[in-house]
Amino acid sequence: MIKGILKTSLRRLMALRVAAADSGCAILDGFYRPIKLVTTVAVVVSPPYTKADHVKYKYVEKRAEDPSVIVEELRLIREVASITKVDVIHIDITLRGLDLTTLTPDDIDLLNISSRAKDHLRTVLMLISADLKMIKEEIGVPVLALGKESTPVRLAELYTAVYSVAYAIKRSLKIGSTTLLGLPRAISIDIREGTIIARSLKPGEHDMLAKFRLEDPSILRKIMWREYPNPVATGFRVVEMRPIA
Amino acid sequence: MIKGILKTSLRRLMALRVAAADSGCAILDGFYRPIKLVTTVAVVVSPPYTKADHVKYKYVEKRAEDPSVIVEELRLIREVASITKVDVIHIDITLRGLDLTTLTPDDIDLLNISSRAKDHLRTVLMLISADLKMIKEEIGVPVLALGKESTPVRLAELYTAVYSVAYAIKRSLKIGSTTLLGLPRAISIDIREGTIIARSLKPGEHDMLAKFRLEDPSILRKIMWREYPNPVATGFRVVEMRPIA
Amino acid sequence: MIKGILKTSLRRLMALRVAAADSGCAILDGFYRPIKLVTTVAVVVSPPYTKADHVKYKYVEKRAEDPSVIVEELRLIREVASITKVDVIHIDITLRGLDLTTLTPDDIDLLNISSRAKDHLRTVLMLISADLKMIKEEIGVPVLALGKESTPVRLAELYTAVYSVAYAIKRSLKIGSTTLLGLPRAISIDIREGTIIARSLKPGEHDMLAKFRLEDPSILRKIMWREYPNPVATGFRVVEMRPIA
Repeated sequence: MIKGILKTSLRRLMALRVAAADSGCAILDGFYRPIKLVTTVAVVVSPPYTKADHVKYKYVEKRAEDPSVIVEELRLIREVASITKVDVIHIDITLRGLDLTTLTPDDIDLLNISSRAKDHLRTVLMLISADLKMIKEEIGVPVLALGKESTPVRLAELYTAVYSVAYAIKRSLKIGSTTLLGLPRAISIDIREGTIIARSLKPGEHDMLAKFRLEDPSILRKIMWREYPNPVATGFRVVEMRPIA
Repeated sequence: MIKGILKTSLRRLMALRVAAADSGCAILDGFYRPIKLVTTVAVVVSPPYTKADHVKYKYVEKRAEDPSVIVEELRLIREVASITKVDVIHIDITLRGLDLTTLTPDDIDLLNISSRAKDHLRTVLMLISADLKMIKEEIGVPVLALGKESTPVRLAELYTAVYSVAYAIKRSLKIGSTTLLGLPRAISIDIREGTIIARSLKPGEHDMLAKFRLEDPSILRKIMWREYPNPVATGFRVVEMRPIA
Repeated sequence: MIKGILKTSLRRLMALRVAAADSGCAILDGFYRPIKLVTTVAVVVSPPYTKADHVKYKYVEKRAEDPSVIVEELRLIREVASITKVDVIHIDITLRGLDLTTLTPDDIDLLNISSRAKDHLRTVLMLISADLKMIKEEIGVPVLALGKESTPVRLAELYTAVYSVAYAIKRSLKIGSTTLLGLPRAISIDIREGTIIARSLKPGEHDMLAKFRLEDPSILRKIMWREYPNPVATGFRVVEMRPIA
């Protein structure tokens, strides 16, 4: 029995498998301000945590501040975690890595955060309480509020870039006009031989990579694109996508 | 008429032209502490926002904390904005991107910032009120307090590096001794074939570049230089300039 | 006499020599959480501040939050500063660069920091008061609380990486099992021809480098290693070290 526990613990040491989700990328107006959020992504990752083992994405097309985005993220996590066994879930709420499946209303009262932050947290937890409960029953692993501290959450963010670029290509061809796509912080993309690639520019993330192969690479011949710094948001890059007349 | 508006809006989408200013680089003492600020720069930039279309600079030689630096910045912006049409102005005051041409004293009272920050803001706004009024009349575009969020402000900062290096070369030759020049955060320079080049080292700014060709490149044969990390300010580089005996 | 002072001042301008210390790297558990701090390093550095002139290290093996770590750092500084003359000492306490050898209890009362931070500061200063006194008598230079603002402190942190990797190699061979080593923020290592090399990934620190040649490079043939992002701490890299069966 004890030997079994040790073996599990060693396997974990070799391969802590994490499911995580994030939402990212925005369609921008002509003044480079976000109009709507484009993509939610959930991933399963294991060491060396530089790409996803499994990915699910959904074009959400919501306002960036819409609190229901977190609900989409949890649902996608449930989907992706049904493909394979995971040891822990990371979500894009930053709360010292606390496990949301065991957090009680009393715990929130005792947190050393502003009452405004507590109210916001209560709203978010109410929105996701049903999904949290299902995760607890179906998957039975901790749901850690690591937010921007989590590498798997960052990988999910990296994948939002590749799917959102695919969305922007189709959008530009459909409307016959320019699309400005705002990428997540410190992410840069490239398009080569029908594959969209996103890389992190943050220190310590140089080997993290997201890829997406277009179903029909020939549509790339119909567009021109370039990437450059967002003039009103340093650290963020913009992809400008234009149909060739 | 409506067609005309649409065309303007499309042109803007293609080329939002921004005027911006910043002050940067300091002469350091032997303990690498700033003695005086060197250069104020104003730029006009358009997509892809990686270099300036037009530049004006002035050697200000003021104490770094001198609040009148912002006045120099606005005056240089007025100069550079007289060369070409601009759509918006960004300045190095960080206040959620608010438009300073429409900000009233009542607005300041309502801001959710400390009373000390409000007092400082009132002082600054008083200093620049005459220039703001002239900008409103002459140029008639918003003056956004984006500060460090603005890529054009960062480009102006990048240009302060190339002009300040030119200043440091001349200073070292004049005084016959070493000059220590402190560059702005995460900026590195190079000197090649008579041209001073500054690059940003910040994530997401890898393609931003400032260049300045010396009028008399032969003076480079009279100096030695090296660049290294400032020992008392991580993230900042120092240029050490020495006349060749 | 005045000429002598000028000469000293010029020499300093050319070569401000700094002693500094830091502690870093942690053995991690299977969930990538720190179990114990590995190494304390003290360095003496001079321009261009990209590597150490002299280094002393000690495997401390303490809990990361153990306040007595600062005592080890001061003792190692005294050791390394006995090798060569230094002009100033930087330590890993962030307090606006104040000189701790002249800081009085009254000064602390007047500091604009929280009462909790003041209490912590008083505890730390009490722990190091004997060593501070000895530094004052033996070395007679300022001890500046620059913390993360100091490049020499960052260089000491870079050296903790190379010595801690050597420690992790020996640990893995000894226990016959995997060791997970957490590196300090934005540091990456390489092992080539018996030498462990650590580089900073932070903007503006690209030329900073720490090296350590293993006494017996043949032990490298007995291990496998890889480095990747820490899943629960973005910006931090993990070295996974495994004995070859």
